[in-house]
Amino acid sequence: MGASRTDWFDAEQLRAAVNMRTVVDHVREALVGLHGGDFEIPLRFAPGAGNFLVMPVRHIASETLVVKSLSANFTGRKPALSGTITWEEWHTERHVGTDAAEATAMRTGAVSGVAADLLAAPDADSLTVVGAGGQAPDQIRAVLAVRDISSVTVAALRRESAQACIARVADEFPHVRFTASDDPRAAVAGADIICCATPAKEPLFTLDDLKPGAQVNLIGSYRPEMREMSGADVARTALFVDDVEAVTAEAGEIIEAVEAGELEPGDLRTLGSALAAGDVAHDPDRVTVFKSVGVAVQDWALMRALVDATTTGTDS
Amino acid sequence: MGASRTDWFDAEQLRAAVNMRTVVDHVREALVGLHGGDFEIPLRFAPGAGNFLVMPVRHIASETLVVKSLSANFTGRKPALSGTITWEEWHTERHVGTDAAEATAMRTGAVSGVAADLLAAPDADSLTVVGAGGQAPDQIRAVLAVRDISSVTVAALRRESAQACIARVADEFPHVRFTASDDPRAAVAGADIICCATPAKEPLFTLDDLKPGAQVNLIGSYRPEMREMSGADVARTALFVDDVEAVTAEAGEIIEAVEAGELEPGDLRTLGSALAAGDVAHDPDRVTVFKSVGVAVQDWALMRALVDATTTGTDS
Repeated sequence: MGASRTDWFDAEQLRAAVNMRTVVDHVREALVGLHGGDFEIPLRFAPGAGNFLVMPVRHIASETLVVKSLSANFTGRKPALSGTITWEEWHTERHVGTDAAEATAMRTGAVSGVAADLLAAPDADSLTVVGAGGQAPDQIRAVLAVRDISSVTVAALRRESAQACIARVADEFPHVRFTASDDPRAAVAGADIICCATPAKEPLFTLDDLKPGAQVNLIGSYRPEMREMSGADVARTALFVDDVEAVTAEAGEIIEAVEAGELEPGDLRTLGSALAAGDVAHDPDRVTVFKSVGVAVQDWALMRALVDATTTGTDS
Repeated sequence: MGASRTDWFDAEQLRAAVNMRTVVDHVREALVGLHGGDFEIPLRFAPGAGNFLVMPVRHIASETLVVKSLSANFTGRKPALSGTITWEEWHTERHVGTDAAEATAMRTGAVSGVAADLLAAPDADSLTVVGAGGQAPDQIRAVLAVRDISSVTVAALRRESAQACIARVADEFPHVRFTASDDPRAAVAGADIICCATPAKEPLFTLDDLKPGAQVNLIGSYRPEMREMSGADVARTALFVDDVEAVTAEAGEIIEAVEAGELEPGDLRTLGSALAAGDVAHDPDRVTVFKSVGVAVQDWALMRALVDATTTGTDS
């Protein structure tokens, strides 16, 4: 057994080992791969009627497996999702693991970075993040990894929450001006890029609040009753999603638009497909929305980035 | 995310944290619990047509989840099974992980210890282990944790392999006499306890080679074409198994006996059931066989032992 080896990275070590730009690049590549059939994604396990989630994903060509195991406790007595992610290689004895909450925040940020990089104005200068919870800092990091942003507004129900969020990231970006807001509608007006990471059940703003050509990332909703924009509004944008099957089953914005007949599931386009085709660019006259509920290949991509960044020797 | 915490134990740290007697106790309790319906055991995932295995098991009362993720590569270019095991708690943010190969060897030893403790002569003095591979040292450690053994014989196809196995454990048991053998049939004659941990496809010995009242643990076979004793022989013993469904599907000895009409699956008794009933003891006139293919609750038990042994503070 002596030759088997697992490298474990806690949240801080993960953060130190991979930078956000690299994760964005890996997530982009994985989304293209997902579109191209590069992955085997078994159904999730949900032991304990969903008290736990086990999400495996296999990358076929490299014969590698990532398994995310979460405890999902929404009682408020602990962070709702926490757990572990592991990486196994069929060809070698190397195994890698890390903290699932930190990894999930990073890869969820990264996918917004991929969308912003593809869809936002090349000269985008301002970002507004609505929501100041655990996901918000990595939304900021990811967008700032792909655009030269000078002004970031964080909007939350309470201004102090927005200020606390800003305090977590401001030191990393000394040349950026940060503003805290308790008014999401005002905060999105004029922003080039908007990331929403909230548990909202009612729209946070309307399409009319946005400037033409704004690029919006919605990562908050994952249940039918949740929505960060109205279904009618998202149906009027240039809309991209991470996974058609997942968003039509889980995302309130999409479900509402489909039920109202404003959207056909068959018309939904994935970000991976757009990246693969290379036929999409920023449209200064039209708002683009990327709706993501999260796909397992993002976890694989994050782990791939971690493994690449920390492989120092050769495996036998 | 700051409060989430994973403790990772590499193979050496795992070994240092839990002693075999504790693992035996935890595995015994888990087998009784398995019999009593204390666990939810979803089907295994086998991504890559079995190149990987993902085995989750949930303990209902404690609301804890163990997931073993293995790469299964039988090309001989690396140890066949290696990977990770993680532990998640629904009530807390504690997460624990360790090396799957080391943990599997320990828990596979432990189940033989449980069987020997229940079924072998109270004054058993001699142990023979057939097979000198990765599982052998923990078979020795486990039996020596439950009986006051003075003499251990390790038998392998090549005497040097047996000697190398002995070299790995002899220092731990300075008062035990170790003997290397290349003749399994001779080595089992007269032994009070026998553990077989081989990939054999033909019987290693016959029932007539054993002394009356000998206690035999067969942990090697896990495919229909593998067998360490003949089906006819095991059918003539007092036979116990770890899991009826698993052994009738996977264990060559059992499949052979059932196909020959010498054994009815309905007559198979689990070790957990015998432990729960408390109606089984050593019979000096009859050979007992325990056949194990391994059950996920052993992994849970090993992790429970590790968590208990390494919990120093209180979880919030």
